[in-house]
Amino acid sequence: MPLTVQPLTAESFAPFGEVIEASERMQHYPINGGSTERFHDLARLDAGSEGRVIVSIFRAAPRALPFIVGMMERHPLGSQAFMPLVGSGVTRDFPGSAAPPYLIVVAPRGPAPVAAQLCGFLAQAHQGVNFAAGVWHHPLLALDATSDFLVLDRDGPGDNCEEVEVTPPAVITAEAITASGVR
Amino acid sequence: MPLTVQPLTAESFAPFGEVIEASERMQHYPINGGSTERFHDLARLDAGSEGRVIVSIFRAAPRALPFIVGMMERHPLGSQAFMPLVGSGVTRDFPGSAAPPYLIVVAPRGPAPVAAQLCGFLAQAHQGVNFAAGVWHHPLLALDATSDFLVLDRDGPGDNCEEVEVTPPAVITAEAITASGVR
Repeated sequence: MPLTVQPLTAESFAPFGEVIEASERMQHYPINGGSTERFHDLARLDAGSEGRVIVSIFRAAPRALPFIVGMMERHPLGSQAFMPLVGSGVTRDFPGSAAPPYLIVVAPRGPAPVAAQLCGFLAQAHQGVNFAAGVWHHPLLALDATSDFLVLDRDGPGDNCEEVEVTPPAVITAEAITASGVR
Repeated sequence: MPLTVQPLTAESFAPFGEVIEASERMQHYPINGGSTERFHDLARLDAGSEGRVIVSIFRAAPRALPFIVGMMERHPLGSQAFMPLVGSGVTRDFPGSAAPPYLIVVAPRGPAPVAAQLCGFLAQAHQGVNFAAGVWHHPLLALDATSDFLVLDRDGPGDNCEEVEVTPPAVITAEAITASGVR
């Protein structure tokens, strides 16, 4: 079934976690003698009682459209945050253009989701997301160019990745992305 | 006194913390069916026993050169990491150009540093840094354009910021930056 794609906003994404962005709605204040504005504590990082938060970089190849969403995964023991690092290749590959958005597909906590439960979001390059522990999501979906993301997730004991099939699958079309109005 | 500026590398920065970058020297492996390469666990995030790691965005105004380094600070209770998010404004302000580098000034753990103990580094836009707990550093020094950084530091009880004057100060000139060879 076709998946609707909506713009990523803090409000629409709230059931699944937080949007990481320098937004006026977040707590912010000047530091360093006024030279810098701090947008403070933007996501609930969660590594559980036995884990620790680690920082990694994911280098993601772009996906072709239409894209078939045939599986989802979740991390029951910790949150997972993604922040685009668009300077690493995009400004080289796309000089003068806006940095590309990326796709997010999530479903509520609970039993393995079916296609009708999936929610598609189009994130802009200045927006990161933090998936709360246990939230179903598709692995990283870059568009247009090889894209680097800073990733904050959990290291620690236990099995923290569960994958399920989505049958029948959902489909994300280029038209659905255009209809989101983000690009 | 004039401060020498050297290119930021993992080796040269090792006494002060880690360089956060997708480098072949780091542990990395394919995930997500081969669509993504994971550069794994790139920094020793440290919030101490009573703190937690939080994620914020710092929006830094660019500094004018020559820049006078008249103070330094340290966070005794936790690490502090900075990762450039060059998509947030630079690609808009500087279409077609490479993203700007930024300056790092550090000094070894120990008593309040004097100018001769300061080390200057020029970081490229794809490089982040993590200051280990207790490492003296200057607050964020963006160049050329208002620049956003994702910041991973500590929230928790206790006084985690100490500032000292550097007397007489050090000076970073445009010529020192050019001499680093990074730009």
